Amino acid sequence: MQRFKLILEYEGTPYCGWQKQPGHLTIQECLEKALGRWCGVSDVEVCVSGRTDAGVHAMGQVVHVDLPIDTEPFTIIAATNHFLKEDRVAILEAIPVPSTFHARFSAKKRFYLYKILNRRIQPTFQKNLMWHVYHPLNLSLMQEAAEYLVGYHDFSTFRAAGCQASSPLRTLDGIQLWQEGELIMVRCWAQSFLYHQVRNMVGALKLVGQRKWSPQDLRLALEARDRTKGGPTAPAGGLYFEKVEY
Amino acid sequence: MQRFKLILEYEGTPYCGWQKQPGHLTIQECLEKALGRWCGVSDVEVCVSGRTDAGVHAMGQVVHVDLPIDTEPFTIIAATNHFLKEDRVAILEAIPVPSTFHARFSAKKRFYLYKILNRRIQPTFQKNLMWHVYHPLNLSLMQEAAEYLVGYHDFSTFRAAGCQASSPLRTLDGIQLWQEGELIMVRCWAQSFLYHQVRNMVGALKLVGQRKWSPQDLRLALEARDRTKGGPTAPAGGLYFEKVEY
Repeated sequence: MQRFKLILEYEGTPYCGWQKQPGHLTIQECLEKALGRWCGVSDVEVCVSGRTDAGVHAMGQVVHVDLPIDTEPFTIIAATNHFLKEDRVAILEAIPVPSTFHARFSAKKRFYLYKILNRRIQPTFQKNLMWHVYHPLNLSLMQEAAEYLVGYHDFSTFRAAGCQASSPLRTLDGIQLWQEGELIMVRCWAQSFLYHQVRNMVGALKLVGQRKWSPQDLRLALEARDRTKGGPTAPAGGLYFEKVEY
Repeated sequence: MQRFKLILEYEGTPYCGWQKQPGHLTIQECLEKALGRWCGVSDVEVCVSGRTDAGVHAMGQVVHVDLPIDTEPFTIIAATNHFLKEDRVAILEAIPVPSTFHARFSAKKRFYLYKILNRRIQPTFQKNLMWHVYHPLNLSLMQEAAEYLVGYHDFSTFRAAGCQASSPLRTLDGIQLWQEGELIMVRCWAQSFLYHQVRNMVGALKLVGQRKWSPQDLRLALEARDRTKGGPTAPAGGLYFEKVEY
């Protein structure tokens, strides 16, 4: 057996999220089936760095997998992608790693990117690949507010009800906001996030951008440690799992 | 009656092209229906700057339309886009113009953009919004070859069989090629183009990029004035009608 680290790209739109569920089309199932088909094994199992919800995309998701054949990384990429041709999932890189490598537990930093299309007119291209916000957003107010989120905090305000983490305490290592044409981009990174934390933080930042909240209101919301004080959840389609550092 | 110039964005993927055809979903029909619905007229007719084929997109298509009500441009945009919400078509701008303005005949320059995704791995995002070419393309050879296309030529080599233009003579005002990450972008502009001219030129430039043709071969193909010497037609999904100058 040889362990490989695989870097994946996927469009989440047609899938019921990452995790295998009987009767639902998931990214994990697509990938495991494609890996199994060319290496002739029916029970390939991959372990993911971070599960993503229905509709969430990835530019650099990471999994590890133990394969019964020691083969060239290039063969893994070409053969698996061949069986993924009809899907919205592709392997970008395959790297042999020692069996001590664990996609989830070895991760030091996870990066998420969130895309907001900020214009009055509805999107025609990439409808499911961004959040359409038609109120003009003030970027510098959003940047000011975002600074309050950086560091070690109790993030209960931005934690979804279904979150299974034992503690709401997390360290947000950084957050960047910038503009690209009609898009406002939000990147944030941390060793780990709570369930829906990124989408909830972006939802609150949007309120600041449209001047419904001041940056101070966002600070107060964080300090309230109460989800009901946290503003809306940004939709799944704008979110990208960008990369992992090990 | 007041004439308006409308600037449109659309994703061509789900449509059988621009032009109305009974029994087929077209962009023209979507737009005319949406305009008709809010201004209460059943026979609104728009006149387009340049028809596009099935699967071809637009960032800045132009039409003119005579509306029975003199209204604010902003109302036209908001009201029409409201009825286009479920479509992949949107009005970006509406400008009142004199009745001598004609979207097609007043056009001085039409700009097209072509997007090639140049990487080994198949696309997962935006599958129908670019041409996936997995052979590595040499950009500077493509740029060198493209120069032979600029100017006044008989473009028979790059003219589709169904072209209804009376003459194959056209002046290509300019062509630019550049790289953006994994994308190679081709922009070309002229007062008018022959049917499939842009897609046929891009198909030939791709042969140069993968070194099947030298830049000189492209020059010879142009001089042959023979479609059978012209290489493949690039797929519709990579093509964008970018803008029109009047």
